[in-house]
Amino acid sequence: MTSRYNQLKQECFEANIELNNLGLVIYTFGNVSAVDRENGIFAIKPSGVPYEKLKPEDIVILDFDNNIIEGTMRPSSDTKTHAFLYKNWSHIGGIAHTHATYSVAWAQAQRDIPIFGTTHADHLTADIPCAQPMKDSLIEGNYEHNTGIQILDCFQERGISSEEVEMVLIGNHGPFAWGKSAAKAVYNSKVLETVAHMAYLTLQINPDAPRLKDSLIKKHYERKHGKNAYYGQ
Amino acid sequence: MTSRYNQLKQECFEANIELNNLGLVIYTFGNVSAVDRENGIFAIKPSGVPYEKLKPEDIVILDFDNNIIEGTMRPSSDTKTHAFLYKNWSHIGGIAHTHATYSVAWAQAQRDIPIFGTTHADHLTADIPCAQPMKDSLIEGNYEHNTGIQILDCFQERGISSEEVEMVLIGNHGPFAWGKSAAKAVYNSKVLETVAHMAYLTLQINPDAPRLKDSLIKKHYERKHGKNAYYGQ
Amino acid sequence: MTSRYNQLKQECFEANIELNNLGLVIYTFGNVSAVDRENGIFAIKPSGVPYEKLKPEDIVILDFDNNIIEGTMRPSSDTKTHAFLYKNWSHIGGIAHTHATYSVAWAQAQRDIPIFGTTHADHLTADIPCAQPMKDSLIEGNYEHNTGIQILDCFQERGISSEEVEMVLIGNHGPFAWGKSAAKAVYNSKVLETVAHMAYLTLQINPDAPRLKDSLIKKHYERKHGKNAYYGQ
Amino acid sequence: MTSRYNQLKQECFEANIELNNLGLVIYTFGNVSAVDRENGIFAIKPSGVPYEKLKPEDIVILDFDNNIIEGTMRPSSDTKTHAFLYKNWSHIGGIAHTHATYSVAWAQAQRDIPIFGTTHADHLTADIPCAQPMKDSLIEGNYEHNTGIQILDCFQERGISSEEVEMVLIGNHGPFAWGKSAAKAVYNSKVLETVAHMAYLTLQINPDAPRLKDSLIKKHYERKHGKNAYYGQ
Repeated sequence: MTSRYNQLKQECFEANIELNNLGLVIYTFGNVSAVDRENGIFAIKPSGVPYEKLKPEDIVILDFDNNIIEGTMRPSSDTKTHAFLYKNWSHIGGIAHTHATYSVAWAQAQRDIPIFGTTHADHLTADIPCAQPMKDSLIEGNYEHNTGIQILDCFQERGISSEEVEMVLIGNHGPFAWGKSAAKAVYNSKVLETVAHMAYLTLQINPDAPRLKDSLIKKHYERKHGKNAYYGQ
Repeated sequence: MTSRYNQLKQECFEANIELNNLGLVIYTFGNVSAVDRENGIFAIKPSGVPYEKLKPEDIVILDFDNNIIEGTMRPSSDTKTHAFLYKNWSHIGGIAHTHATYSVAWAQAQRDIPIFGTTHADHLTADIPCAQPMKDSLIEGNYEHNTGIQILDCFQERGISSEEVEMVLIGNHGPFAWGKSAAKAVYNSKVLETVAHMAYLTLQINPDAPRLKDSLIKKHYERKHGKNAYYGQ
Repeated sequence: MTSRYNQLKQECFEANIELNNLGLVIYTFGNVSAVDRENGIFAIKPSGVPYEKLKPEDIVILDFDNNIIEGTMRPSSDTKTHAFLYKNWSHIGGIAHTHATYSVAWAQAQRDIPIFGTTHADHLTADIPCAQPMKDSLIEGNYEHNTGIQILDCFQERGISSEEVEMVLIGNHGPFAWGKSAAKAVYNSKVLETVAHMAYLTLQINPDAPRLKDSLIKKHYERKHGKNAYYGQ
Repeated sequence: MTSRYNQLKQECFEANIELNNLGLVIYTFGNVSAVDRENGIFAIKPSGVPYEKLKPEDIVILDFDNNIIEGTMRPSSDTKTHAFLYKNWSHIGGIAHTHATYSVAWAQAQRDIPIFGTTHADHLTADIPCAQPMKDSLIEGNYEHNTGIQILDCFQERGISSEEVEMVLIGNHGPFAWGKSAAKAVYNSKVLETVAHMAYLTLQINPDAPRLKDSLIKKHYERKHGKNAYYGQ
């Protein structure tokens, strides 16, 4: 099938498959999207299709107002959340949503994940925020769109940046992660799950475990992301 | 081997193998059955046969009064529970029983699994019930048949529907799950194990974690199962 | 290599490999032996040989007084424990020792594993005993031989039968399991690890979880092992 | 590519790959080095290169003052810690650093891992030390070099030997392990992770679990490492 969006579909397809390979999803419990800023559209997994059966041509293309541009399948039920985030955060290139076990456990516990160590600080300097469940009126309304608002409100209220903190827990639901590409969003989902696992164990071993001190947070974040970063090639 | 039940045996065989592939059983710790309503019979795994050695032709065919219709092997020791459920719940097409780790842990703890999040609410709106252990006289009697009664009584006492809640924990024993087909019963067994794992972790992170609020339960259940469902294809 | 013990070596080899395949050991953290009652000898894994490099001809043959009958390699450092058990328990055909994670955790916690459910009762009717660490004088003496005495004393003091209870935890050390064959000893090691995992989770979910009641213990054990057993083929 | 260091690079490469195969790292969360004492240099993983893409020729060669001797890629960001340890501990041949889950959990909890059992005592006779986080002035300074000092100070203050205790936790960060070769350093990383997992579970099952008594520590350590050791071939 020839389509101007084939490359984007392929990128989106591969990121979805990777989500499955990393053990972050079972059945259809997740979705990844990838954006094309030039054309103002994004590609997303179709709803309820198992990863083993997913094909690149099944990927659905939509604009940021949720109009289907290309594709015969119904897009992910979480599509409106993706569209809202793309519309409001022009710097992101991909979004991933999962029901990964440890991430969901913290979301269900309605607790932020404290920054306990350098694994966390290698990626972000703040606790991983858990957005509180939204008001009933918003749930009964345009729910998935409102989930986008819930995420934005959470970041605004706390004064944290979505460029630095590329992940969030939706209280009682599960994680969303994003990044410069769909692959990076999947990477961040895996980092979040790993950090969630470590933080859980840390509290079991020492319920009074202290947060990582500021000097170490700064050191580890900046050696990877600062202007004098010396990590990587 | 030609048999009018070959297709049913194959369906039952594949569902049993899937139970093993999903990591829900070791050795012979589980069994799946599939029903043929038209002929009033069901197919079930033979007792004590390891999954690696199981063949489609080993599957045993019985009627709802536990008479063997076809097959040379002894059927699963839990057969009478399956027969009882098929006889009483005409809407179900398959049943799965496992000793999956987290499901068993909740059963042994004799606790219902609270509905803590949307992963749970995507599948059912109630806590997953843990049926209390039966009376000694029933254990010493027709035990597996009485396990079926125990399940029905549990649902009746609590006023929950077996069409909506397709899973139960037998106190001190383990889970049973069912659905429109044997494959769906296996799917529900995996969902139950996953939700059991998440709920366990949730309580470890926050012993006072609240149940999911009603508006979110309703929203998530109905977007998948309500009359205006918009999940899936 | 022609040897009258080739078949026994092969059986011992395969049981050791299975221990590894089941995820019960890493590196050289375990050993399995198989007995030949007719000839009064047993076959055991050589000491410190990684499972990936183990060959059937590496297996060492000894009599019950720890004399090497055949083999060029040094036998497992735990050999004397095996020999002692074979000498004293004429009904057993194989022994397995591991450092499997959950079994070791209970051993290190110095607690018996309570019988919480039917997964346990399908295999034995007692709590899984944790033998208390031996006296210093015995540790400094013929340690591995004395580990055998420690196991026998534990069973004698508690009045439990090694024919029915085919597993034990050595306090602060780890599990030993046995059975009619080396394969059965490995099976029992896997069952022990699974039951240890379930019991751990049960106590986390409900610290006051009750033991399984006697009627259910009896029912489940006897439907598999009683004179009117109806489990299996 | 011909180089006098090809064999060392290959050894270093294989040890890094093994770290990944053992499940001790995800993405680029770890690094292994191997030393060549005769030439006063060591080989280390390049920074930020995923294990799936790593090739033997990517390995970087440095001297103990962190001068690159051979290689076009930037070495691991933790290189200075490795160099410092090689310079000060002339007996070690390889070093491994990971962010393995259970090891990190204890490091984040800022607790030594108590010696609870023989799995631990088979490898070392002391609790696994957790070095307290360093002073802010050192963090802001030559951080990775100072991490080496932090490790040495920890061993000196506690009077433990780096020949016997081949592993350490850096508080809030993660584990370092070493040994006679890079392969042995990786082995010790896996042992540490396993012991960390067991000790965590032990405390969950029995918060008052006692340390292993001295006689058993001595017995198990010496049967493997003492002058009359009888473990292995």
